[in-house]
Amino acid sequence: MNTLGRVLRVSLFGESHGAGVGVVLDGCPAGLELTEADFAADLDRRRAGAEGTTPRHEPDEPALLSGVFQGRTTGAPLAVHVANTNVRSADYAHLAATPRPGHADFTGRAKAFGFNDPRGGGHFSGRLTLALVLAGVVAKKVLAGVRFDTRLIEAGGSADVESAVREALAAGDSVGGLIACRVEGLPVGLGEPFFDSVESVVAHALFSVPAVKAVEFGSGVAAASMRGSRHNDPFVGPDGRTATNHAGGVNGGLTNGNPLEVRVAVKPTSSIGQLQQTLNFDSGRIEPLTVRGRHDACIALRAPVVVEATVALALADLWLLRRMQEAAHGA
Amino acid sequence: MNTLGRVLRVSLFGESHGAGVGVVLDGCPAGLELTEADFAADLDRRRAGAEGTTPRHEPDEPALLSGVFQGRTTGAPLAVHVANTNVRSADYAHLAATPRPGHADFTGRAKAFGFNDPRGGGHFSGRLTLALVLAGVVAKKVLAGVRFDTRLIEAGGSADVESAVREALAAGDSVGGLIACRVEGLPVGLGEPFFDSVESVVAHALFSVPAVKAVEFGSGVAAASMRGSRHNDPFVGPDGRTATNHAGGVNGGLTNGNPLEVRVAVKPTSSIGQLQQTLNFDSGRIEPLTVRGRHDACIALRAPVVVEATVALALADLWLLRRMQEAAHGA
Amino acid sequence: MNTLGRVLRVSLFGESHGAGVGVVLDGCPAGLELTEADFAADLDRRRAGAEGTTPRHEPDEPALLSGVFQGRTTGAPLAVHVANTNVRSADYAHLAATPRPGHADFTGRAKAFGFNDPRGGGHFSGRLTLALVLAGVVAKKVLAGVRFDTRLIEAGGSADVESAVREALAAGDSVGGLIACRVEGLPVGLGEPFFDSVESVVAHALFSVPAVKAVEFGSGVAAASMRGSRHNDPFVGPDGRTATNHAGGVNGGLTNGNPLEVRVAVKPTSSIGQLQQTLNFDSGRIEPLTVRGRHDACIALRAPVVVEATVALALADLWLLRRMQEAAHGA
Amino acid sequence: MNTLGRVLRVSLFGESHGAGVGVVLDGCPAGLELTEADFAADLDRRRAGAEGTTPRHEPDEPALLSGVFQGRTTGAPLAVHVANTNVRSADYAHLAATPRPGHADFTGRAKAFGFNDPRGGGHFSGRLTLALVLAGVVAKKVLAGVRFDTRLIEAGGSADVESAVREALAAGDSVGGLIACRVEGLPVGLGEPFFDSVESVVAHALFSVPAVKAVEFGSGVAAASMRGSRHNDPFVGPDGRTATNHAGGVNGGLTNGNPLEVRVAVKPTSSIGQLQQTLNFDSGRIEPLTVRGRHDACIALRAPVVVEATVALALADLWLLRRMQEAAHGA
Repeated sequence: MNTLGRVLRVSLFGESHGAGVGVVLDGCPAGLELTEADFAADLDRRRAGAEGTTPRHEPDEPALLSGVFQGRTTGAPLAVHVANTNVRSADYAHLAATPRPGHADFTGRAKAFGFNDPRGGGHFSGRLTLALVLAGVVAKKVLAGVRFDTRLIEAGGSADVESAVREALAAGDSVGGLIACRVEGLPVGLGEPFFDSVESVVAHALFSVPAVKAVEFGSGVAAASMRGSRHNDPFVGPDGRTATNHAGGVNGGLTNGNPLEVRVAVKPTSSIGQLQQTLNFDSGRIEPLTVRGRHDACIALRAPVVVEATVALALADLWLLRRMQEAAHGA
Repeated sequence: MNTLGRVLRVSLFGESHGAGVGVVLDGCPAGLELTEADFAADLDRRRAGAEGTTPRHEPDEPALLSGVFQGRTTGAPLAVHVANTNVRSADYAHLAATPRPGHADFTGRAKAFGFNDPRGGGHFSGRLTLALVLAGVVAKKVLAGVRFDTRLIEAGGSADVESAVREALAAGDSVGGLIACRVEGLPVGLGEPFFDSVESVVAHALFSVPAVKAVEFGSGVAAASMRGSRHNDPFVGPDGRTATNHAGGVNGGLTNGNPLEVRVAVKPTSSIGQLQQTLNFDSGRIEPLTVRGRHDACIALRAPVVVEATVALALADLWLLRRMQEAAHGA
Repeated sequence: MNTLGRVLRVSLFGESHGAGVGVVLDGCPAGLELTEADFAADLDRRRAGAEGTTPRHEPDEPALLSGVFQGRTTGAPLAVHVANTNVRSADYAHLAATPRPGHADFTGRAKAFGFNDPRGGGHFSGRLTLALVLAGVVAKKVLAGVRFDTRLIEAGGSADVESAVREALAAGDSVGGLIACRVEGLPVGLGEPFFDSVESVVAHALFSVPAVKAVEFGSGVAAASMRGSRHNDPFVGPDGRTATNHAGGVNGGLTNGNPLEVRVAVKPTSSIGQLQQTLNFDSGRIEPLTVRGRHDACIALRAPVVVEATVALALADLWLLRRMQEAAHGA
Repeated sequence: MNTLGRVLRVSLFGESHGAGVGVVLDGCPAGLELTEADFAADLDRRRAGAEGTTPRHEPDEPALLSGVFQGRTTGAPLAVHVANTNVRSADYAHLAATPRPGHADFTGRAKAFGFNDPRGGGHFSGRLTLALVLAGVVAKKVLAGVRFDTRLIEAGGSADVESAVREALAAGDSVGGLIACRVEGLPVGLGEPFFDSVESVVAHALFSVPAVKAVEFGSGVAAASMRGSRHNDPFVGPDGRTATNHAGGVNGGLTNGNPLEVRVAVKPTSSIGQLQQTLNFDSGRIEPLTVRGRHDACIALRAPVVVEATVALALADLWLLRRMQEAAHGA
């Protein structure tokens, strides 16, 4: 469904070529300072502009529809909407016959029994991540004292992201990337295992971001190759600090006071300039396909702020639950 | 929390050294054939026995407490309980002073403000996965016609699992492993994006399994290194079949008719025979630590059936939601 | 929280004197015909106009923000927004000192630690029921073949509603009312007991409507005075039809094929023209209070369509769940 | 479904004539003192014994299966099970042909497509309320400082409950009753409107109790007959205390510091000794029916503790959410 969270609940709506995209954040604490200007910095991080990002530019001006009074949150649902402005008319009828490889054209159509909005991917568009970024701004305000550092650390298998993107662009191709998010300042004990371990909740949120193919915590995939004697993080400080951080800041599904370390693999943009061979569902034959439209050569370039917002939303929900437990215990 | 799912809801309870572990499955369709004998095969797959598994052997006899009448599910909550029998008395008081590296001793204690059950990890024990396996047996009955193939494909970075485990054992060490789960026969359109994409729901469930450090779909982490021209899976069949399966059977958060391919990295068992250096929280000094008890050298050996059960639970919930949509549409 | 439902989920946002009110409906089946014009009839039923209703008139033009393409629902979240237009500036600062009896001024302020939007009741305003009515229009489309009959059957204890309202108005007073909702055409078996009995789900939704003080099914409060020999409804038809309907169409928390009969007691509007004696929290003294603003003398006059929408939302959620069960069973 | 609550979640399972009934309470704060003896007093209140209660007597000894260590809750799920002991063999096959009026025989069978457990009502039995009482004991521990007063105030329309029950018994009949629950000591601000108003959450829980036909807060049904000048509760104390309590302790869906007053109408027991006329679904004819078994003449006699437990569960969930808000605000 389109809602995430137990006590801080985020709901998304909107389409790529419809009226716009919006988000409703329910359960936001009252009294947080919030104006429309607070969204600017993170929207900038998501905005296209660098080489390899889409030429579709939009002002993306968020309108606060509810939940704020005199510059502070009221605790009532916070709704924010961003109108779509730079929408090009196009004929999307052909997508039924030749769904684009890697896209949700085929599955989205089947899901909706043919009633999906096919324009620009409709509700499956990466444009929906705009709403995540808006909500993430508020989530980070909830997480007072918590620091995020989120970066694209590789593209196309290379730490030289710029070259990798330039080469892909030159080849009419696209390229994937690896994003690392490090979160410092979290208290010990966030997470609600068995099922709502901090990894479960964070990964759930992250895998809702289009194009994410893998989520790793700490040692991640490499853990499968390691011995316990090396993987175990020995304690070195009374606050739970460990000498290494293979755990990625989590033991038993709970934050352990060390930085939360999560990495996200983003696949290469499915829309590429190169000619592709795929099935034409009408003719039943394999035929060449050219994908039109304005696209990112490396969607991962704009994704770090999306990953950060998503992680923040998941953590803010767990943070509030933990505050509750502390309050109930101290009663 | 300890409940997972929207319409097929699984709740776990129990501890490693308490009365036992149990599971309540709510929303199970009425009329499924089910007796206690149906659990035997999957419990066997989870049972210790092979080299590298724990010497703690238990009969693990499940008792059906509710939800079944005359050998068929009634649609009322299905409760199954397995009593703990082979529980050794031990002094766990020292865990407060010297929490074991890699375990939940430190975080579990903080979470519960010191009121946790420390015996054998309490509620954080891998023994809870027994309940997952029980529920998974029912979930697979719900998923009529769906086939699972779940295997440990690597341990310690080697495809020769047996040798890797034997060497770790000989060194008083443990070793991690990589488990691959392939699911065939799923219809197109499972998943409820934006937030309940099939990857989100499956990964959420998988990251609740103790020791899981990474979850990958299809190309997984490798996607970050790939170009779009190679990653895109071209359609070759009118049912949505593609020539490759880098997508892992998912586009736009929805199953696409190709096999669902998910891989899970399991860390090496935290309990090892070797001496470790860690903090003694009482003395404030780094001291040697010996971990006692009966443990698996490679917990991943027994985990494939747990991974399979967990994936099945996540998919069965989405399957039922999809049946609802088809029924509402009139399909 | 501001979301209701398990598989058809309605979320509200907005305030009385803010930008407007909105609703997001998630889980709506794809393919339903829907245009903005479809909301007109039910908005008319809610609109002020009759004697005893507020002189605040607004055009209430709903804007479909998402979830519809070419006149049909897509299955993506449906968002509808209605801008507030006829908002009068007023000084609400005095509400902190003299919260109005019967209103949420005192509790709403405490809830938000003083950060609530006090203008016109903010998020606690009856204006939020506009969003319910919008969502109810869609819910009734989901409930194909189901017929609603919802009426104000009493006001001020009298079946002569018009006189009761007129007399209250003349006295500068307000008056409560009793609304009956009868739903025909429901299949047998709606409801998910133990906790989500059809009464539980419907009453939950109804008690979220401001001013509702009681909810009764079938015999309702009178059941407490009855003997079983009279209360029991004897079956008379093979479809489950009964000679009487003291059950109100529900047995064991499940619809039984007879009409669902629910009644809702609505309290008199809290804002009255008469002078009231209440505490001035600043002075600490009991003082006279005059409530300004534009108000309904009998809010129950405009509430039947709200009650109907609310019941429809609750039932549509259960209806979809039941379709799922039928599909899973193979019926 | 069989789970209630957002952060304190109660799940029920079991049947009247199966292995027993059980409850899992998830989200319980760690550190509460709890032993099996703590359940005794409330189980006694529910136990049969007085004139007009069923001759089915059971020891009802609760077994704590998980979530407690050394006499205190651990924060892990708390599971409690009570085995059924006094179960009489009986032939329930005839219930398919002649479902008992007022019971869930007809609806329960349809719901489960014929796979329901018909023995003693199966999962629809009032015996499930035993699990509610168990959970309620814990909920009342969570609600430190809150006082409950719950009574049967009328039966058969008469405040002389004893006579009303005796007369019904003598006539081979049953009789309904009215239960009042008054809760003192609640803080201001419990409730999560719009949809999770305190009335919504409490009524949701109460309508899951079998035989409940109406739920009223404060003035209740009588509000429909009242004028605002009388219904409005004027403030008289700076803590929000009001001179009257027509609101029943709730304004705007939030507790207002005055006692929460809720009343519940319980229908007469459906099983009566008198001969009834109803449909024989096999013969298609109206025929006489005699209901066998051991039953209460006035189920309301044993229900006050069930009502109290149910209200406590609903309030404890809201209480914890409110503690969270206070903690988030004071951060």
